[in-house]
Amino acid sequence: MAEPSVGIIMGSDSDLPVLKDAAKMLESLGVVYELTIVSAHRTPERLFSYAKEAETRGLEVIIAGAGGAAHLPGMIAAISPLPVIGVPVKTSTLQGLDSLLSIVQMPGGVPVATVAINNAKNAGILAAQIVGVKYPEIRHNIKRYKAELENRVVEKAQHLEEIGYEQFLAER
Amino acid sequence: MAEPSVGIIMGSDSDLPVLKDAAKMLESLGVVYELTIVSAHRTPERLFSYAKEAETRGLEVIIAGAGGAAHLPGMIAAISPLPVIGVPVKTSTLQGLDSLLSIVQMPGGVPVATVAINNAKNAGILAAQIVGVKYPEIRHNIKRYKAELENRVVEKAQHLEEIGYEQFLAER
Amino acid sequence: MAEPSVGIIMGSDSDLPVLKDAAKMLESLGVVYELTIVSAHRTPERLFSYAKEAETRGLEVIIAGAGGAAHLPGMIAAISPLPVIGVPVKTSTLQGLDSLLSIVQMPGGVPVATVAINNAKNAGILAAQIVGVKYPEIRHNIKRYKAELENRVVEKAQHLEEIGYEQFLAER
Amino acid sequence: MAEPSVGIIMGSDSDLPVLKDAAKMLESLGVVYELTIVSAHRTPERLFSYAKEAETRGLEVIIAGAGGAAHLPGMIAAISPLPVIGVPVKTSTLQGLDSLLSIVQMPGGVPVATVAINNAKNAGILAAQIVGVKYPEIRHNIKRYKAELENRVVEKAQHLEEIGYEQFLAER
Amino acid sequence: MAEPSVGIIMGSDSDLPVLKDAAKMLESLGVVYELTIVSAHRTPERLFSYAKEAETRGLEVIIAGAGGAAHLPGMIAAISPLPVIGVPVKTSTLQGLDSLLSIVQMPGGVPVATVAINNAKNAGILAAQIVGVKYPEIRHNIKRYKAELENRVVEKAQHLEEIGYEQFLAER
Amino acid sequence: MAEPSVGIIMGSDSDLPVLKDAAKMLESLGVVYELTIVSAHRTPERLFSYAKEAETRGLEVIIAGAGGAAHLPGMIAAISPLPVIGVPVKTSTLQGLDSLLSIVQMPGGVPVATVAINNAKNAGILAAQIVGVKYPEIRHNIKRYKAELENRVVEKAQHLEEIGYEQFLAER
Amino acid sequence: MAEPSVGIIMGSDSDLPVLKDAAKMLESLGVVYELTIVSAHRTPERLFSYAKEAETRGLEVIIAGAGGAAHLPGMIAAISPLPVIGVPVKTSTLQGLDSLLSIVQMPGGVPVATVAINNAKNAGILAAQIVGVKYPEIRHNIKRYKAELENRVVEKAQHLEEIGYEQFLAER
Amino acid sequence: MAEPSVGIIMGSDSDLPVLKDAAKMLESLGVVYELTIVSAHRTPERLFSYAKEAETRGLEVIIAGAGGAAHLPGMIAAISPLPVIGVPVKTSTLQGLDSLLSIVQMPGGVPVATVAINNAKNAGILAAQIVGVKYPEIRHNIKRYKAELENRVVEKAQHLEEIGYEQFLAER
Repeated sequence: MAEPSVGIIMGSDSDLPVLKDAAKMLESLGVVYELTIVSAHRTPERLFSYAKEAETRGLEVIIAGAGGAAHLPGMIAAISPLPVIGVPVKTSTLQGLDSLLSIVQMPGGVPVATVAINNAKNAGILAAQIVGVKYPEIRHNIKRYKAELENRVVEKAQHLEEIGYEQFLAER
Repeated sequence: MAEPSVGIIMGSDSDLPVLKDAAKMLESLGVVYELTIVSAHRTPERLFSYAKEAETRGLEVIIAGAGGAAHLPGMIAAISPLPVIGVPVKTSTLQGLDSLLSIVQMPGGVPVATVAINNAKNAGILAAQIVGVKYPEIRHNIKRYKAELENRVVEKAQHLEEIGYEQFLAER
Repeated sequence: MAEPSVGIIMGSDSDLPVLKDAAKMLESLGVVYELTIVSAHRTPERLFSYAKEAETRGLEVIIAGAGGAAHLPGMIAAISPLPVIGVPVKTSTLQGLDSLLSIVQMPGGVPVATVAINNAKNAGILAAQIVGVKYPEIRHNIKRYKAELENRVVEKAQHLEEIGYEQFLAER
Repeated sequence: MAEPSVGIIMGSDSDLPVLKDAAKMLESLGVVYELTIVSAHRTPERLFSYAKEAETRGLEVIIAGAGGAAHLPGMIAAISPLPVIGVPVKTSTLQGLDSLLSIVQMPGGVPVATVAINNAKNAGILAAQIVGVKYPEIRHNIKRYKAELENRVVEKAQHLEEIGYEQFLAER
Repeated sequence: MAEPSVGIIMGSDSDLPVLKDAAKMLESLGVVYELTIVSAHRTPERLFSYAKEAETRGLEVIIAGAGGAAHLPGMIAAISPLPVIGVPVKTSTLQGLDSLLSIVQMPGGVPVATVAINNAKNAGILAAQIVGVKYPEIRHNIKRYKAELENRVVEKAQHLEEIGYEQFLAER
Repeated sequence: MAEPSVGIIMGSDSDLPVLKDAAKMLESLGVVYELTIVSAHRTPERLFSYAKEAETRGLEVIIAGAGGAAHLPGMIAAISPLPVIGVPVKTSTLQGLDSLLSIVQMPGGVPVATVAINNAKNAGILAAQIVGVKYPEIRHNIKRYKAELENRVVEKAQHLEEIGYEQFLAER
Repeated sequence: MAEPSVGIIMGSDSDLPVLKDAAKMLESLGVVYELTIVSAHRTPERLFSYAKEAETRGLEVIIAGAGGAAHLPGMIAAISPLPVIGVPVKTSTLQGLDSLLSIVQMPGGVPVATVAINNAKNAGILAAQIVGVKYPEIRHNIKRYKAELENRVVEKAQHLEEIGYEQFLAER
Repeated sequence: MAEPSVGIIMGSDSDLPVLKDAAKMLESLGVVYELTIVSAHRTPERLFSYAKEAETRGLEVIIAGAGGAAHLPGMIAAISPLPVIGVPVKTSTLQGLDSLLSIVQMPGGVPVATVAINNAKNAGILAAQIVGVKYPEIRHNIKRYKAELENRVVEKAQHLEEIGYEQFLAER
């Protein structure tokens, strides 16, 4: 797996503070990725060539994030046969409800695997779960991640039970 | 103006019962049009070639209708310099709120002139108003149409005032 | 691949008219699946054992559909390391907006790949895209499916252009 | 009643600033409680064991708070026969509408007694009202609390009437 | 427990087709109840006397259902110290979203235990869970009910697995 | 009071089945009214002259009903100093949420007294309450109406208590 | 008119920064008023006595503001025959959509004249318009107020036209 | 084209920080415009005369922005035969959802070309696209603008690809 296996794209560099979480999560799960900007509305040619070449370039999953009338994930999914994960980016007016509906409500024939508003971290995990279908070591890393998640909550719970909520809040 | 000046497209033939109203209105306002199906998600190549050729083929305005995660109007507007009118088609689940937000909430740089949910009739009028900027006879037809609208309401109002609401409802 | 590779579950047999579309799509894309009922709220033990055994039983993707306060997809994703696809089922009161938000708005760490309300067909396609990462023949089938989708639209568009919208609507 | 009679749990320690209000209210109403963290999505085993043991450990009511796709209250209610009170925690994107619908829209057979978004104080009062069905002294405390609520409003009203709204606002 | 222990009230007799499900569920769980109409807006005196006398008449829980600007549950909770369960009734315009928000979003100090829109069945179960805190035989009946719920799902699941979804749908 | 004192107007004759309820209620409360069609969008001149002449023609309150982007009530209120009551008419797409927000969310300086979606009956009562400030006999009629409302509910409640819900539902 | 003719009440002193605008507007329009706190949920007895005595005490209109599950305006309207104006107060979670629906969606028989969220100023104007039906001097003041509103906008418009938007914004 | 060809109006000077973006965009696209304040609700006479004279004064498109119950765009469109572009201005309570629905949901016969909430920049582009139907040099400017948009994104994408997301975020 010399070439990147997950492509992360976003509609604007203003989405990077959200989408970087997908990159970070993929790093920690040992998945190779590439990351760039592709705007469905401002660079439609780039959208087309990116989507058309994704599979032959060796990508196995695409994560696409956008806000408002968010067409990037759906248009990538229209062109490429790869699984596409959509990240609805929160907007300043409608809080991302517009982004969510623009991404998730795809018509029959062209799915986008949508995650929660602004939750690019989960897009990274989902991409790892998808490539984990093929690569057992990635599956293994996901199991380890889930175990760590569990441990961290259990530790916090024990600490809270020991010191009580007032002390716990004071320590934060 | 031998060639069609307004292009009407829709994402699926299931949208035709809605979009036909744009065609009818353009006919009655004396505007030449063409009408076909272009699906952003199922025929992305067709979307691209339609949008790229629209201006050189002589189109002056494009009306695009779609439902759900409705990307057709926005993607046409991304590619073509022509004014694009979007018609959000009502959906069976979210009533067209998803279609409306997917069409109207376009990012800075790429507007779609959005009309009310399912209101392709108004898309036809708006297209005529836009070409009316150039063609005085179309502007004239719009004025005549507005006068007719007004007359019909005034006549109904007079009839209602004369016969009262009970008789008026009985006659309907 | 003797054992089923996609598990389809639903919260109630009343969801079957929706979820059967996932099964049909997987059949047509050549993906082996199994289908049953698992209710997060009425059979929590069954939920746990299903989720815990899914991977070792050979499942590679799980499709879970539910309506209202829909917890089935998220709870499966909490327990199993497999990718989980969520299908929000339309409800009689809030039209499935409750189902959608209950499924898609998962917290960091536990993604659910959410598709459109009632769109189990797309869940089937997405599951095939995911196993297609591993199995080239499934990837091939998806490409064939996308080509067919495109052809059908193009044929309808040509027919509509030839006969006009009035005749087209009359033929429906 | 040596053992705690109300269990307060939350999906994450980030919910503690909200859920602590339930604890404070129970203290002031003389109801014994315990408080800890149980995450439906990150600690599903802990969720199960907590819910299964709650009744035999002597709990009589459970208050569960969570945000987003909030599954904790509903899953506890699926497993335990005890009455479960759900507190929808406000989210940064959809303001807690997602939390509310994920908690309140439970299917037939498994109710969650839902209170207002972020209103853990009311969850504490409701829990006290429920144990007050069995313990007359708690019922008595609730009546005293309601009388105090009334008195405080009446006093403020009298003060406002005496000094006028400008002075009243200046004093705040 | 000679006198009724649960009072079921509704704002209008048009709510009876919904609220009767609470009565049926209480019957099947062995809880005594009474049922009548009390309108917050059309019979405010009756609302007051009902709420004031509820506790002394021996009621232990009140179930109140109403639609639209639904004030009945909240006003009962304002007056009586008993736990009050609110059932938002679906409306013809806003589908019960208005009813839900009018009932659940109570201010600090006066909780209403809200269940899903139109889900009076769950109001019945919740009322039984609440009186079950005091009466072990009712708690026992709830456990039996939950076991039956589970069995019915498991049986349906087995039947579906045996005959397949096509046959299952054909039998419905 | 020889001339009509309440003017009822609506944006379209399709709103008459809703608005007629205002007329009926005013009749039963002894308030003189007139009723006609005035469309803000199709007859703007008529809107202006209606609003400008309303006070001098002797009207004392105006009831205006409209749907969708409902501008009629607000524009009448912009021009006339009379109190204006707005009736949001239910729409086929967004259920009247658009009508409600278009009518109620008026800017500072120009209020519209908004009633519930489709509730022209309440607009009639409110208009009578307003003219009742001046005419004691109308105030008297409102008190009588409220007493009748109360009696009808009490009678239904007694009947329901006597025969039980099953018999009551069977009689409907 | 020695006694106050408009009563302004609010559910909590935290609503005073909003409701004071009604008082200020009534002052500037020459309408006598009184202002106090009446909580439907925390002081139900006070609510009843206030509503029952309002007419005999000489009040002619009541303005009631509340937030969340806002029952105050509707309950006052249930008890008193006077016209009641409701002011939905913005909430920290659902922005006042809950307050709006709780106030405006009243059932047939009991209207509340609802104004925009947080717009107590408009409640003051509407109250003045209502008493203006009876008192010509108040009607006169409303006309003067509307003329001033108009003049201020026209002056600003002229200033903007003269200096241009950049200078205008710099002056703000 | 000596006279202004686009008229920009807004309901209040508080909308100027939003609407100025339309002016700036028109400047950069070489379109002559004028800009002023016209309030539908506070200056209805001015609204009428503005709309009536717009065409004869040489305007070819009107951009109208307003917030809340936003009637300005629709009323202009009711009176003038020119194409009208509506800009929904974000509100402090409902985030501009009220403005959007008040502007876009126009009835059959009177369209308003609606753009995204607060997106006056897009209103400027759309107005230029409309006059570009008539004036080739404006069409040319739009093509240049679209090419610049594209170039800027491509440059940012290349920069991001070269330096990586951490460095890119640090440079912002």
